[in-house]
Parts: sequence; structure tokens; C-alpha cells
Amino acid sequence: MAGSNPGIPRKAVILAAGFGERMGRVPKGLLRVAGREIVHRTVLLLSKLGVSSFVIVTNGDYLNAYKRFLEEKGIDADVIVNPHPERGNGYSLHMARKAVNGRFILTMSDHVYSGEFIERAAEGDGLIADRRPKFADVEEATKVRVEGGRVADVGKRLAEWDAVDTGFFVLDDSIFEVTGRLVEERDTVNLSDVVREAGLKVTFVDGLPWMDVDTPDDVKKARRMLVRTAVKGTGDGFVSRHLNRRISTWISYHLVEHTGPGPMTALTFAVGILSALLTLWLPVLAAFVYQFDSILDGVDGELARARLETSRFGGYLDSILDRYVDGLFIALLAYGSVTEPLWYLVVLLALLGSVMVSYSTERFKGAYHVDPYRVIKPLRYLPGKRDERVFTAMVLVALGLVKAFFVLTAVVANVRVMCTVYLVWRSLSQPKTI
Amino acid sequence: MAGSNPGIPRKAVILAAGFGERMGRVPKGLLRVAGREIVHRTVLLLSKLGVSSFVIVTNGDYLNAYKRFLEEKGIDADVIVNPHPERGNGYSLHMARKAVNGRFILTMSDHVYSGEFIERAAEGDGLIADRRPKFADVEEATKVRVEGGRVADVGKRLAEWDAVDTGFFVLDDSIFEVTGRLVEERDTVNLSDVVREAGLKVTFVDGLPWMDVDTPDDVKKARRMLVRTAVKGTGDGFVSRHLNRRISTWISYHLVEHTGPGPMTALTFAVGILSALLTLWLPVLAAFVYQFDSILDGVDGELARARLETSRFGGYLDSILDRYVDGLFIALLAYGSVTEPLWYLVVLLALLGSVMVSYSTERFKGAYHVDPYRVIKPLRYLPGKRDERVFTAMVLVALGLVKAFFVLTAVVANVRVMCTVYLVWRSLSQPKTI
Repeated sequence: MAGSNPGIPRKAVILAAGFGERMGRVPKGLLRVAGREIVHRTVLLLSKLGVSSFVIVTNGDYLNAYKRFLEEKGIDADVIVNPHPERGNGYSLHMARKAVNGRFILTMSDHVYSGEFIERAAEGDGLIADRRPKFADVEEATKVRVEGGRVADVGKRLAEWDAVDTGFFVLDDSIFEVTGRLVEERDTVNLSDVVREAGLKVTFVDGLPWMDVDTPDDVKKARRMLVRTAVKGTGDGFVSRHLNRRISTWISYHLVEHTGPGPMTALTFAVGILSALLTLWLPVLAAFVYQFDSILDGVDGELARARLETSRFGGYLDSILDRYVDGLFIALLAYGSVTEPLWYLVVLLALLGSVMVSYSTERFKGAYHVDPYRVIKPLRYLPGKRDERVFTAMVLVALGLVKAFFVLTAVVANVRVMCTVYLVWRSLSQPKTI
Repeated sequence: MAGSNPGIPRKAVILAAGFGERMGRVPKGLLRVAGREIVHRTVLLLSKLGVSSFVIVTNGDYLNAYKRFLEEKGIDADVIVNPHPERGNGYSLHMARKAVNGRFILTMSDHVYSGEFIERAAEGDGLIADRRPKFADVEEATKVRVEGGRVADVGKRLAEWDAVDTGFFVLDDSIFEVTGRLVEERDTVNLSDVVREAGLKVTFVDGLPWMDVDTPDDVKKARRMLVRTAVKGTGDGFVSRHLNRRISTWISYHLVEHTGPGPMTALTFAVGILSALLTLWLPVLAAFVYQFDSILDGVDGELARARLETSRFGGYLDSILDRYVDGLFIALLAYGSVTEPLWYLVVLLALLGSVMVSYSTERFKGAYHVDPYRVIKPLRYLPGKRDERVFTAMVLVALGLVKAFFVLTAVVANVRVMCTVYLVWRSLSQPKTI
């Protein structure tokens, strides 16, 4: 089991024997952050990577709460009771010794990790440390000093340190020799004692979203972290990056504990249709509602990613509904404000272009099975994405320049499609990108 | 090397020492069928499956022709001369003995195979035989009688037989013991002697396109076979299956030796734009040209597949151009025949629906990375595919019912999109399909 590149361990141990005093004595692993118990999130993310067997070490008081939780979620995990939680989390780890052999992941029930963090961390070895923690409270964190790739010292009050302990470890069962020795020698055995004594290897995973939750304030902070890092972004245009996402993440932050992506997709569609209908009577208001709907449109995806509830069908449905909202908005806006056939020709081209912008990127995904924005960078800077078109609609309609909106959309959208085809063609001469 | 499931061999031997008397003494492997030398086709199809090393056995007269061909195409192959081609193709095989060890594929330079045939055959063992030959001339073919999974007898004039020899074999180097013995015993050693003597295993690959080429007439037959089986078909609608494909394959048959898919994509787009422009002056003629363009639209794909020149970009460009042809046809037809805003609303919905039909399937491919028509069978029977919409346009416009065309397209296309979304959603409850 000690060979090179041994892959991701199949087993994970989660330490959950602390009493969570600063939260008011609750099992912290069962706190819901972004609609999911912290432990559930960790189990789901690890399962995706192939971890198939889980061990939870808790205290006698919280045993039933954990058992109920596991049953309710249908998670197959061994629960082990640490009869002396006051002896420290190193002692808790020692309790898991009979449930583990070979390599395993060790992690903490009160640490909230993003998917990207766990993906990278699970491939590491020893203690996973972060040299540029973005979300964790560095003041409160356990620091690590590293020498020759191994832990030289560890503690909250180190004068000199290199990185912060993320509470995530990739270990093997030889660690139990160390815990066994320490448990015999001392009353209280903290994990940092074990880490120091074992002189663990250190793997750096820097700057990715993770944090631990100690206080009610930390729960909010963790929620904010998950919502903000749930922005997909690769296909976002200028307006989305600088305006829509700021508001949509604020909305998502307030909704994420209460509602999943499904109802938001429905609401976004309803508001979109409303904006299209409003063009017939109150075009200026309609244009503002349309822009508001474009902001709302980010929320379902953010909720889905933050709550780990993404579904391909959700994304599929959402983008088809978006096309219909855009199509109906253009069609009804024209019906309410245009009479001449020549202008309708412009409107028809605007509608065609506006659907073709999406078609040209989706058709690419269908053919090449990759996200065009990731492999063809210049695509990101082409104007004419949906957020930009909607914002333009709002501004121009508010200024009474409805026909200018149609002309602009007809030109920008269709030129964008031509540029997309050109960029795809050009990228073929750089075979590495596709 | 004799273990189970040993995979596809990395080496292939192609026998090309015959003089091709019935073709007028030409190297048959260098005859072009569907724009490619027969041997080039075989090499390309085998390369796709991971065969990386080729040996061609030819006669002294054709040596230079083969060498020139290989150099021109940049194919890395050993060419071996059979100094006694009159001693038979079993003798030619014997000539390859020093260039081969372990398992190898053996095939004939005058056999034209489809990709599907080669994919299945290369996974077989021994002689590959076809119990339901669709294209080969059974009268002229070598027949095989099979007993207990092995060749019992082989020859052109068997009284009883089970299958036809496809000229494709998966062998190992123990075959050279057999050829060696026969070469010592006899003057003429045919491959059928080798097969009979070795009691080869038989793998059946039935009913897939392949045939051998002996006469000038066979070249035409092979061309027709490649064009007909180049119809992709999974997304074809009723009109395509019963009308368009019959004409497009006839066109492809006549073009396939002369032109590749690129010029046809350009021509199809040009004719499509012409049909859209014609709506302004001669709508009935325009509608007929539009239907003709819909037939032409099949040709580029057929040429690409028959000539082994498919490219993702070609397919990408083609489908974007199709959307523009449809969009412009609808837009200009409306501009020439509609004046009332209410009717323009219908036109806008017709245009939206017509693009959304393609969007809803392409978006599916982007999300699920599979062809929706293959995994969601009922989709095939939904009306409203492009070939059906274009045909409807021709009929209704010819009858002077332009507005009926807009209403019908607006309803059928958009209902089709809703049904597509519903069928995708429903297929999620059958997790095996996606």
C-alpha cells in the first residue's frame, strides 16, 4: 500500500466527538450550511471521488443524533463512540483504529469544504495545509511549520509558520502506533500532538474554499463562502460579472437554506414571461423586469451548486426556458411597438441571432464535449452574451430607443455567431486546445 | 498471447500480390472507391482501432506503385515482394512470416470494408465469416462450412455451407507453420488451402457492409454500398427517410469520386440563401428551391462519411448554416407576404420554434454527451424535424397558403420542443437510458 500514486483512499474517518460549546452545545457536524449538514456535504463530496466507506467518531451524547441522521440520509457509515471525549480529538482518532486498515482520509465534522478543495486534498499525502487560506479565520487556526516536506511544528501560537492546518489528512494505519503511544503517556491527546509526534508529510493545497465552523457567525460565513464560490462563471459576460452576480449571490445567500434550485427555475421563467407580456402595456417597466429576471436567472444555478443539488436536467430545462423568455420578449416588444415589415425583418434577425448565440456554443459542446469558454479563451471577450443583451434592452427601451435595440441585437448577436464559428475554426489549427 | 480477450492486434498484413486480371491488370488495392484507394480506406479504419503497423505483400510489377502510394499518403508500412505471385495468395501470406510475430490481422487489398464491419471483425478470432452477406457477390464468393466453431471446409463450390469468407482474419504467427508445410508440398498455395489445413476458428460478423472488387462493375457496386451506408439517419424525419435520402444518395453516388464535403456545405448554404431571397419575388419557386436545398443538405454528410472525411467542425458549421437558412427563409418569406403585426407575432414564434427544435436536441448532447435520438427512442417519431418543416413549406407555399405555413410551424415546432423536454425528463426515471 506504500507504492507511488496509490490513488484516493476508499475509507474516510470523520471526527465528531467535540461538544461544540461555542455553538451552544450542538453536534456541529449536523449543522446545516447551504441546506445540508456539514457531514453530509463532506460524505457526498468524498463519495464522488470514490470513497465508499465512512467511520464517524462521536461522543455518547450525540450518538443517537448521528445515527438518526445517517439513517435518514441513507448513508452507510460505522459510528464509533469515544467514551472520553474530554481526552481530545487525538483520542477520538485512536478510537477508530479497529475500523481502519491501510490508507484512509481523516477529516473533521465541523469543517466545510468545497468540492475543488476536496478533489485536490484527497490526492495529497499526510497533512493537507493551505499557505493562502481565503476563508478560514487565520487567528484561530492551527498553524504548521514545514521542514523538508514534513511537519516540523504545529500549534495555534507558532512564532513562525508556513501554512494553516485544513483539518484534512491522508494517512495510513501506521498512525495508530503514534496515537497508541500518546494515549498511554498522556491524559489529553490532541490531534496536533499526533501530527507533531508522527512528523507527518505535508501537502499544500492553497487558496481553495474551506473553513471550520466554531461560532454562529462562522455558519453565516461558511454559507457566504459556498454561495460565492458557486458562481459558475465561465460563460458570464461583462454585466454578469460586474452587476448581476453581486445581486444574485446576495439573493442566493438569503435563500440557500430555504429553497432548492427547482422553484427558482420556475420563478425565473414566470418573471421572464411576465416581462415579455408587460412589453405590450408598459415597455419601460417590462425592460426593468427583464433585467431583474436576468439577475434571478443566476440564482437557480448558484443554489444548485452551493447545495450540491446540480442536475443536468435542471441546466437543460433552464437554458431552454431562457431562450423562450428571450424570444417572447423580443416578439412581444416588437408587436407592441413596430408596424412596418422592414422593421419586422430586423426584429426577426434579432430574434434569430439571440437564439443562435446560445446555439453556436451548445452545438460546440455537443460536437466536442468540452466547454467552449474553457478551451477557446477569446470567446469570453466577445460581446453579445445574454446578460449584456438583456442589460442593453433595459437601457435602450428605457430611453425610448426600441428600434435601436432591435438593430443592435440583430447586428451584435449575428456577428458574435460568425466570430464564434471563426474562433472554433481557428482553434482547430491549435490541436491541443480541443 | 493466447489468453482470453487479448484485444485488437497491433499489426495488419494486407495481401496485394494479385494482378487484377479482370480489371485489366491493375493493382486493385490502389483503385479509388469513394475518393480513396481501397488499401488506404482499410489502413485508416484499422488505424482508428489502434492497429499501428502494416505489412503489404505485393508482386514485383506493382512494388513501385505501392511504394509511391504509401509515401504520398504518409503511411508507414513495410512492403514485401512475393517473387512468385503465381503460386497463390497462401504463398503471399507465407512471405510475411518474418515481418510478424504474435497476433495479427490479415486482409485483402481488393476488399472494401465499412467502418462498422472492421470494428466488429477486428475483435473476432480466426476467419471472419458472414452468414447474411448483403453486398458481396455470393455466387463468386468463397464459402465456409463450420463445425464446432471451426472451419470444416472452404471453397467456391461447396454443396453445403454456412457463411461467406469475408477476406478478413485475426490470426497468430502459428499460421506460418501451416503455410510453411504447404509451400513445401505444393506449387500453388491458396489461402483457402491454408484455412482448411489450419482448421481456423470462425467468428461470424453478419450483414454488415463489405464486398470484394473483381470487375469494373464491382467498383460501382462498392461505391453505391459506401454511399448508401453513409446515411447517418438517427435524426432523419419522415420526408428524409422516404424522399430526400433517395435523391441525396443518388447525387452523392455521382459526386463521391469527384468532390469532398466542404464544397457541398458551401453550395448547400448558397442554394439555401438563394431560396430565402427568392421568396421576395417568386415565393413558389423559392419553396421548391428550399425543398431541393433540404435534399442537398444530406449530401455533404454522406460524402464525408463515404470518403472517410468526417470532421466535427464540418458538422458544426453545417448545422449553424442550416439554422440561418431556415431563419432567413422564414424572415424573408414573411417580409414578402405579411403586413399585420399580429401575423408577424406568429412568424416570430415560427422562427423561434424552428431554431429551438435543433437547440433542444443540441443542448441535450452538450449536457448528456449522447445522441438523444439513440437513447430516447420516442423522439424519433415526433413530427417537426427540419426535413418535414421544409417539405411542409414547399407544399403550403405552392398552394398559396403562406400564413398556414407560419401557423403550422409556430405550433408544431414549439409543441415539439415541449415534448422533447418532457421526454428528456421522463427518461430520467429510467436511469439506464442516459
